[in-house]
Amino acid sequence: MKRVSVLAVTTAAFAGLPLYQLLAQDAPKSPNTSAGFSAYVDAQGNISLPKDYRTTFLHLGTFSVASTKEKEAAELHNVYTRKEDWAAYKKDKKWPDGAILVKDVYEAASENLTTGRSSWAAKIKVWFVMVKDTTSRFPDNPSWGDGWGWQLFEGKDSSKRASEDYRADCRACHLPAKKTDWLYLDRLPSP
Amino acid sequence: MKRVSVLAVTTAAFAGLPLYQLLAQDAPKSPNTSAGFSAYVDAQGNISLPKDYRTTFLHLGTFSVASTKEKEAAELHNVYTRKEDWAAYKKDKKWPDGAILVKDVYEAASENLTTGRSSWAAKIKVWFVMVKDTTSRFPDNPSWGDGWGWQLFEGKDSSKRASEDYRADCRACHLPAKKTDWLYLDRLPSP
Repeated sequence: MKRVSVLAVTTAAFAGLPLYQLLAQDAPKSPNTSAGFSAYVDAQGNISLPKDYRTTFLHLGTFSVASTKEKEAAELHNVYTRKEDWAAYKKDKKWPDGAILVKDVYEAASENLTTGRSSWAAKIKVWFVMVKDTTSRFPDNPSWGDGWGWQLFEGKDSSKRASEDYRADCRACHLPAKKTDWLYLDRLPSP
Repeated sequence: MKRVSVLAVTTAAFAGLPLYQLLAQDAPKSPNTSAGFSAYVDAQGNISLPKDYRTTFLHLGTFSVASTKEKEAAELHNVYTRKEDWAAYKKDKKWPDGAILVKDVYEAASENLTTGRSSWAAKIKVWFVMVKDTTSRFPDNPSWGDGWGWQLFEGKDSSKRASEDYRADCRACHLPAKKTDWLYLDRLPSP
């Protein structure tokens, strides 16, 4: 009985597709699965923070954000991506499907060092993760749209997703960078 | 004739050393050669800038240095090392022989972005390279001392060594960090 019902579901899901088309599919294109798409995205489109990005990803660059009170940085923002994603981007001038970028936002500490008034990343505040999606896999997941998956994580708990809707939580701040695929990387020196 | 004179030189250079000692030498310890010590240091102790540090080294962190004029960064300093050097440092709490660190110093550009007054690395000014030397290989080379080789490169020509004596060009700015082996890395979050 079990075998029959599984077969029935399978048949329904692939209805109308000849076998050669099924075999030719590299990454699943259906909206409810991401198997083979990204190690950081589950079947429902939930994005995870890559735990090892600081030691395995490529540093694209760092933004320093000024304090409104003093001549020092309030925050330091470091941007990272995987080496293979960067290699593909440099070659094709566009981010490949599944490319992932992490921006960590640190509270700065400052001190007068020999080089001048210096600020550095002292305490993690939040992480932003973006995952490129060229096929609109998750139309019903509000963290996905405009060609990306967008996810915020709070520094106090990197395992907990802290944004639910990128249109409310992410999009406005990236809107000025829409023409560069929503990223501000044109301001950083190319590695 | 040629073969005889080469043999004579070879014999003179290794005079007094039995063959098993010659074969057992991993890295040469004599002050006039660094073969096997570092791909970035020649036999005279001249240090080269690793051309691929941005894509192959590990980003340790970034300092933002304030402008004296406005609420923005004047410079961004990014610090990198090789992954194997960082792994050894984390394990042993000291830098291994041959460890190499690169700090690039960029002139900052600034703009009001959605996140606030933001500064980023816009134009390379200089590179600083330090190579760990636990055996004082180059006592007659003024770029070496205090357990390190020290080398400055100007942004306009990364192949030209721009410092000649670390005591005059490098040491004073690192003196406050002497107790942490001349590095300010204790101010950056550990990768």
